[in-house]
Amino acid sequence: MSQTKIMLEEKEIPTRWYNIQADMPNLPKPPLNPRTNQPIGPEDLAPIFPLELIKQEVSTERWIDIPEEVQQIYKLWRPAPLYRAHRLEKALQTPAKIYYKYEGGSPSGSHKTNTSIAQAYYNKQAGIKRLATETGAGQWGSALSMACEFFGLECTVYMVKVSYHQKPYRRLLMQVYGAEVIPSPSQLTNAGREILAVDPDSLGSLGMAISEAVEDAAMREDTNYALGSVLNHVCLHQSVIGLEAKAQLAKVDAYPDVVIGCCGGGTNFAGIGFPFVYDKIKEGNKVRVIAVEPAACPTLTKGKFTYDYSDTAKLTPIMNMYTLGHDFMPPGIHAGGLRYHGDSPLVSQLYHDGLIEARAVTQKGCFEAATLFAKNEGILPAPESSHAVRAAIDEALAAKEAGEEKTILFCLSGHGHFDLASYDTYLSGKLEDYEYPEELINKSLANLPEIK
Amino acid sequence: MSQTKIMLEEKEIPTRWYNIQADMPNLPKPPLNPRTNQPIGPEDLAPIFPLELIKQEVSTERWIDIPEEVQQIYKLWRPAPLYRAHRLEKALQTPAKIYYKYEGGSPSGSHKTNTSIAQAYYNKQAGIKRLATETGAGQWGSALSMACEFFGLECTVYMVKVSYHQKPYRRLLMQVYGAEVIPSPSQLTNAGREILAVDPDSLGSLGMAISEAVEDAAMREDTNYALGSVLNHVCLHQSVIGLEAKAQLAKVDAYPDVVIGCCGGGTNFAGIGFPFVYDKIKEGNKVRVIAVEPAACPTLTKGKFTYDYSDTAKLTPIMNMYTLGHDFMPPGIHAGGLRYHGDSPLVSQLYHDGLIEARAVTQKGCFEAATLFAKNEGILPAPESSHAVRAAIDEALAAKEAGEEKTILFCLSGHGHFDLASYDTYLSGKLEDYEYPEELINKSLANLPEIK
Repeated sequence: MSQTKIMLEEKEIPTRWYNIQADMPNLPKPPLNPRTNQPIGPEDLAPIFPLELIKQEVSTERWIDIPEEVQQIYKLWRPAPLYRAHRLEKALQTPAKIYYKYEGGSPSGSHKTNTSIAQAYYNKQAGIKRLATETGAGQWGSALSMACEFFGLECTVYMVKVSYHQKPYRRLLMQVYGAEVIPSPSQLTNAGREILAVDPDSLGSLGMAISEAVEDAAMREDTNYALGSVLNHVCLHQSVIGLEAKAQLAKVDAYPDVVIGCCGGGTNFAGIGFPFVYDKIKEGNKVRVIAVEPAACPTLTKGKFTYDYSDTAKLTPIMNMYTLGHDFMPPGIHAGGLRYHGDSPLVSQLYHDGLIEARAVTQKGCFEAATLFAKNEGILPAPESSHAVRAAIDEALAAKEAGEEKTILFCLSGHGHFDLASYDTYLSGKLEDYEYPEELINKSLANLPEIK
Repeated sequence: MSQTKIMLEEKEIPTRWYNIQADMPNLPKPPLNPRTNQPIGPEDLAPIFPLELIKQEVSTERWIDIPEEVQQIYKLWRPAPLYRAHRLEKALQTPAKIYYKYEGGSPSGSHKTNTSIAQAYYNKQAGIKRLATETGAGQWGSALSMACEFFGLECTVYMVKVSYHQKPYRRLLMQVYGAEVIPSPSQLTNAGREILAVDPDSLGSLGMAISEAVEDAAMREDTNYALGSVLNHVCLHQSVIGLEAKAQLAKVDAYPDVVIGCCGGGTNFAGIGFPFVYDKIKEGNKVRVIAVEPAACPTLTKGKFTYDYSDTAKLTPIMNMYTLGHDFMPPGIHAGGLRYHGDSPLVSQLYHDGLIEARAVTQKGCFEAATLFAKNEGILPAPESSHAVRAAIDEALAAKEAGEEKTILFCLSGHGHFDLASYDTYLSGKLEDYEYPEELINKSLANLPEIK
C-alpha cells in the first residue's frame, strides 16, 4: 500500500501567506460605509481593526510574510498532515484517489487557529488590550480565546444563544482559555437590546452576534473586533492550508483534479482552494475547485450577487457578495459554522467569474458521509467539515461511475468530538433535513439595501 | 527560541515493541486460576484471548515485531509529536526543560489506539468475529470500537453505568464506530444480574464491567475478550510511546532526568516509562520514572503488593500486584480511567523492586495544573492525563526551588475535548477533592483472596 500520511518537515511550513487579490481577473467591488453608502477608507476600519490587518485587507501583494512569532505558534499543530484515504476508497470501490488535509489537530480542534493567532498577534503589536468577537457553534470563539490567552489579551465572545445552550463544550473550552462568553442577543449592547425588545426569546444568529461584538469594540478604546471568516485577511491567513497541501501532494507526484472545501463565511474553502485557483489563473490548470454549502443556507447557489449588510444591526461595511439577505435566519442545522447569510467577497467574486464551482448538500447526506468516513478513516468530522466529505464522496462515486482515476483533495477542517450530540440525533433517526428554504430567502432578499 | 515540536519521519516509527520482561531483575509471580489458585497455562486463557496475545503475555523476548498491517494503521496518528513546553516553562519561571509526548492526536483522542489496533488485528487473524470489553470513561471503548470497525469485527462494550450516563459523548463515538454499548452492570450476564440483585441502583465499576465482558466472551465461541490496560501485552503495545519519545529527545541531544506518566491500570505509564527503565537497568542511567495516580484510588502508594482478583466476579486470573482489594469502590473522580483497584503486575513488580517511583495527587490540583497547561500550550488535557501534568509541574517547581536545570518528560495521553463537563465543575468551584480513602481501602483489603 502506498503512503497513508504525507508529512512536511517543520522547515517546510509556509513562511508567507498567499494573497489571491494579486491574481484575480476582477477584484471585488469596494466595501461601503453603511451610513453613507460611500466606499470606506482605512480610517473607517481603524476603530475596530489594527492597521496591519487593514493593510492586508486591501493588499494586492501576492505574498505576505508570516511574522516569526506567528510561525512559532503555528508549529504547535503545523505542518498539518495530508492523508490518502485508502480505506475509504476501498469502501467506495472507487478508482479515484482521495486525499484529505486534516486541520483538526490544532489545540482547539479546527482550522480557525490559523487566523486567530495572526489576528491576536497584530492586535497585540498595535497595543490593543482586549478583543471582542462573535461565534456560532464555537470553533472560532475557542480558537480566538486560545490566541488571546497566548498573547495576554482579554477576550469577550458573543455566542449565538441557541449554541450557547446546545453546545456547552465549546463554550467551556473558551472559559478554560480564560474568555468571557456572553449569550447573544444580550442586554449589554444597543444592538442586543433592540433585538430583545422585538423578540425577547430570540435564539440569536451570527449576524446579530457580529453586531454586538462590533458595537462592543467600537465603544472601547482598548478593544478591537476580530472576525473568524468572510474578510480578505482571514482568507489570506488560511492560505497555509492549501499551500501545505500542494507541497505534500508534490511529494507523492500528485495533483488534484478536484479540490473541495466546506463553505460558510468562505475562509476554510479559501484556505484549501485559493492556492489551486492560482494555478488555474496563472498556469491554466484544469483543476476544479468546489465550495460546498448547506442546502439550508445556500448562499452561493441560491443567493444574489449584490451589495448587502454583513450584520443584523447594519454596523459593519456593506459588502458586494453572494447573499441571502441580512435578515435571513437559516434553519437550525447542526453545522452552526455554516449558517451565515453572506459569503466572503473574494469567494463570491471568483464564483461570479466562473473560476470556482459551488454545490449545496443536505445535512442527512452529510452525516451519512461523515459516519462512513469515521468508520473507515477513524477521524470523526465536525458537522461543518462533513459537507466537504459528502462532496468528496460524491465525486469519488461519479469517478467510479465514469471509470475515471480522478485525484480528489478535500479539507477536513475540524474534528467532531464536540459535536457528538449532533451525531446522536443522526444515529437515532431524528435528524431533520432542510432543503432550499425558498420562502425564507425571498422574504429576506426583499430587504437588500438600495445602493445607487 | 529552540524547537517547539520534535517530529520523526514516518520511517522512524518503531517497527518492534519493547518487552520489559526481557530485562526485569524479577518477573512478576505467575497469574493463578481463580477457581484452583494454581498457576494458569495458555489453555486457561485460550477461551478469551488469541494465541499470539497469550504468547506476548508471557514472552521474555526483548523485541517483538509489529505486524505490517498494524504499522500501516499506526501511521494514521504516529509518529506522535514530542513538544517542548516553552510557554509553560516561562509561566512557571522554571529553569527546567519540560517535554511532553502527545498521544491525543489519535482519531479517538487518546493513546489507547496503540493497543486496540494490535488486539483487533491478532483476534481477526485468529478467526474471531466479535470482541467484548469494558470501559470506564470511554477512552478504551472508543479506541477498541474503531479498531474493530477497521478489521470488520463486531464490538460490544460494557460501559460503567455512571459514565454511560455522565459521559454520553464517548459513548456516542463508540456508536458512530458501530459498537454496541451496554451500561454495566446489566441484566445480560450472570455477573451483572448478581450485582443488580444485591444493589439494583449500582453505578458500576471497572471491576464489574470486566466481569461482564469476560463472561460474555467466555460464553460465545466466536467472541474474545479485550482488555485496555493492566496486562503485559498491553504494556508491550504501548511501548511505542516511550521508544518514539526517546528517539525524538535524541534529535535535540536531550535525555530526561525525570519521566512521568499517569497510572490507572498502568499501561500508559508503562508506554512512556519502560523504555527508560530499560536504560536504568541495562545502562545504569539515573533517570527517575514516576507513576502518578489519584489520591482517591492510590493503588501503588497505599495498596498491598499481593495476589488479588482483577474483577468483581472473580472470573479473571488472580494476579500479583499492588491492589486496594477487588471490592474497593473508588470515589467518583473525573479521571474515570484511573479508577481501578489494581495495577499492572509489571508496573507493580518494578515499583516493588524500587526501579520506579509512585506518587498520588488530588483532583483539584490536577485540574488546576491542566488549566494552566491549556492556557499556555493550547492543548486541553484529559482528566487522566492531568495527573501527569500535575506531577510534571511539581517537578519543574522543585527544580526552580533548587535552581536545577532538569529535563522533564511526561506523557500527555489524551485530549480533554470529551471531558469539558469535568472542567465546568472545576471552573465553577464545585469540584470535590478526595484524599486517601483509608476506611474504604481497609474494608476492601480485608477481602483479599487467601493464597497459600
